[in-house]
Amino acid sequence: MALIVQKYGGTSVGTPERIEHVAEKVIKTREAGNDVVVVVSAMSGETNRLIELAKAIHSRPPARELDLLVSTGEQVTIALLGMALEKRGHAARCYTGAQVKILTDSAHSKARIQEIDAKVVTEDLKQGRIVVVAGFQGVDSTGAITTLGRGGSDTTAVALAAALKAEECQIYTDVDGVYTTDPRVCSKARRLNRITFEEMLEMASLGSKILQIRAVEFAGKYHVPLRVLSTFDEGPGTLISFEDDTMEEPLISGIAFNRDEAKLTVLNTPDRPGIAGMILGPISDANIEIDMIVQNVSKSGATDFTFTVHRNDHDRALEILQRTVEEMGEGEVYSDTKIVKLSLVGVGMRSHAGVATTMFKALASEGINIQMISTSEIKISVVVEEKYLELGVRALHSAFGLDDDDATVRVEGKEAG
Amino acid sequence: MALIVQKYGGTSVGTPERIEHVAEKVIKTREAGNDVVVVVSAMSGETNRLIELAKAIHSRPPARELDLLVSTGEQVTIALLGMALEKRGHAARCYTGAQVKILTDSAHSKARIQEIDAKVVTEDLKQGRIVVVAGFQGVDSTGAITTLGRGGSDTTAVALAAALKAEECQIYTDVDGVYTTDPRVCSKARRLNRITFEEMLEMASLGSKILQIRAVEFAGKYHVPLRVLSTFDEGPGTLISFEDDTMEEPLISGIAFNRDEAKLTVLNTPDRPGIAGMILGPISDANIEIDMIVQNVSKSGATDFTFTVHRNDHDRALEILQRTVEEMGEGEVYSDTKIVKLSLVGVGMRSHAGVATTMFKALASEGINIQMISTSEIKISVVVEEKYLELGVRALHSAFGLDDDDATVRVEGKEAG
Repeated sequence: MALIVQKYGGTSVGTPERIEHVAEKVIKTREAGNDVVVVVSAMSGETNRLIELAKAIHSRPPARELDLLVSTGEQVTIALLGMALEKRGHAARCYTGAQVKILTDSAHSKARIQEIDAKVVTEDLKQGRIVVVAGFQGVDSTGAITTLGRGGSDTTAVALAAALKAEECQIYTDVDGVYTTDPRVCSKARRLNRITFEEMLEMASLGSKILQIRAVEFAGKYHVPLRVLSTFDEGPGTLISFEDDTMEEPLISGIAFNRDEAKLTVLNTPDRPGIAGMILGPISDANIEIDMIVQNVSKSGATDFTFTVHRNDHDRALEILQRTVEEMGEGEVYSDTKIVKLSLVGVGMRSHAGVATTMFKALASEGINIQMISTSEIKISVVVEEKYLELGVRALHSAFGLDDDDATVRVEGKEAG
Repeated sequence: MALIVQKYGGTSVGTPERIEHVAEKVIKTREAGNDVVVVVSAMSGETNRLIELAKAIHSRPPARELDLLVSTGEQVTIALLGMALEKRGHAARCYTGAQVKILTDSAHSKARIQEIDAKVVTEDLKQGRIVVVAGFQGVDSTGAITTLGRGGSDTTAVALAAALKAEECQIYTDVDGVYTTDPRVCSKARRLNRITFEEMLEMASLGSKILQIRAVEFAGKYHVPLRVLSTFDEGPGTLISFEDDTMEEPLISGIAFNRDEAKLTVLNTPDRPGIAGMILGPISDANIEIDMIVQNVSKSGATDFTFTVHRNDHDRALEILQRTVEEMGEGEVYSDTKIVKLSLVGVGMRSHAGVATTMFKALASEGINIQMISTSEIKISVVVEEKYLELGVRALHSAFGLDDDDATVRVEGKEAG
């Protein structure tokens, strides 16, 4: 008898009818001979409704009380799902994060899981019960309710799967798997049967919203096999597996993009040691996260220094940067919010030369100018003008053979050049 | 520095604006030099909304999951009130019933409080914090969330006041105190400055909806002074005190009525020992609560036996009763749902003769026929035809001098005869 952890997001449990549908799916898995632990999010819209209530009272609601408030969202869902299971004659036990218990640190609204004491769950499973757990929430050592931040239900599911040594952690969502790129941008996007953890991490961090990046990290760290599936359609979904599971790697698994960034540049900054720290120090002191950093090779003692931040942080970062440059007495500041980052992701590129060349040529042939480049072992990212987003994604999707109809062959066996 | 426990019901916290108003009232009490513990209900309508959700899934939702579900209602309120207090610069700590912790038995949806471990509250008060506690809910010894049943927030407040040895437990509601009778029925109804616990108990059990009867019992048992006040109007409210606090008792404190009952009669039942048990046994076996019981003096070996039940239980009780009479082979069954019970309540009637006579005369002079009579030390109840409700209440209100304008004199000093 295998143990399966299933997670259903807010859209999947958005109405009483959908909760009943989820109950049917859970029971199907149970009746196939598995033990089942189900993690659920708040019904879609509920978390926002609660935040609206809070905002009606406090423009910046204190995090401790906000966690206490929004954690009721998942509590409602577990109770309703428990009722739907009981109605169908299945014994169920429903737990909040505090009851399970999922011990976290005290960083309200972005708490991290420290420990899961799943004794109670193990005992329930032994008694033949289906266990339903509220996602997204936990409890700190003082007994205060915490939340893991948006999307934290994925993390709850993976952490429970790790603690219970589950055979598979299934993330049910409103898409039927991980795609080579966003189908809304490129109609030829295809579902992948498999993707490695490293690739999924890059995809997630580059703006693919299917899985929360912390959940993927967690799954990778504890070797929990993850599967992304659709709540509404049948199908195998996408298995996120360990590299050595796959027979042969495709060159590129997918194309991610991110239009949430803004670019800031200091031109003619003095090219001497310590200058990068002087420029970026005040930015990170203000808790602004920096993504890409590019410094050009120096000519004539001066250099150009460029970095990107989240678009929401652009105004604040620009103000800080202008002050810094003023203090340095050298350099000019430029910024641009109309940019997009395109990224190729694939473990296959480790062992293949020429990926970058193919990428740059494909973009050039569409007249797309590259503003910044940054690379990692399994990823190449470029920054281009925002208006080229769709054109660039489609050009790369074609250039790397991802348009191919037979996804399985393409992803699991075919070698690309 | 005195410790005050305040309880605000669902209407008082029905909107974000009202929650802010409650915060102001709490702070006023705090700034007058008191420690304050606040108990709140779910926002009005919220509990019903949650029950509707449950009913959409399960026609008879399992009690365990239902408690888990509806307990989110108060959790939302404590968080919002905490935010409103913090916004005004007051440190607050908000707790669910499980967090406080309020230990109950496991009788879901009607749990009874067994113990309150208020260490955490005492510590918070010592730190100068205002403490906000979710009413209506607790936790059983296995960690499952329980609820105390409708109106249970009053019980939470009183139990906390007892555990913390509070100086006063203030129940804020949408009326400004306890009245001699329902002002919607009798326009001359007046607010009482004081009422004894025994009288309040009778009033509550007779259908006055201001305080939950268990809360009054609890307050009486632990000698917690209770005060009923309005959230929306200033005023002293009504103090529910111990008998020896008052200088001199009025004859009658109030007139209660209850139109939720139905009457069942067995005519010509054999007048022999054990017959009452034979008739009522099957009714109470079916968990139907019986209120009044009257058996007439026997003539010629047969007697008439009448009792009342909640109107919702009438059909079931009638069916059971008919079966019983069939089995006994004797008697005829009659029932009537169009009745109302009128009751005089007052500790003063203990030492005064003639109360019953005055009552019966007052009703007779309006042509109201009395169907049943039942008495206790401080109460006389009669059952009359439902259509006489308003007329009967007004007649009694006059006959016992309750129409008097000067409530204070009337209630605290004036002797009636």
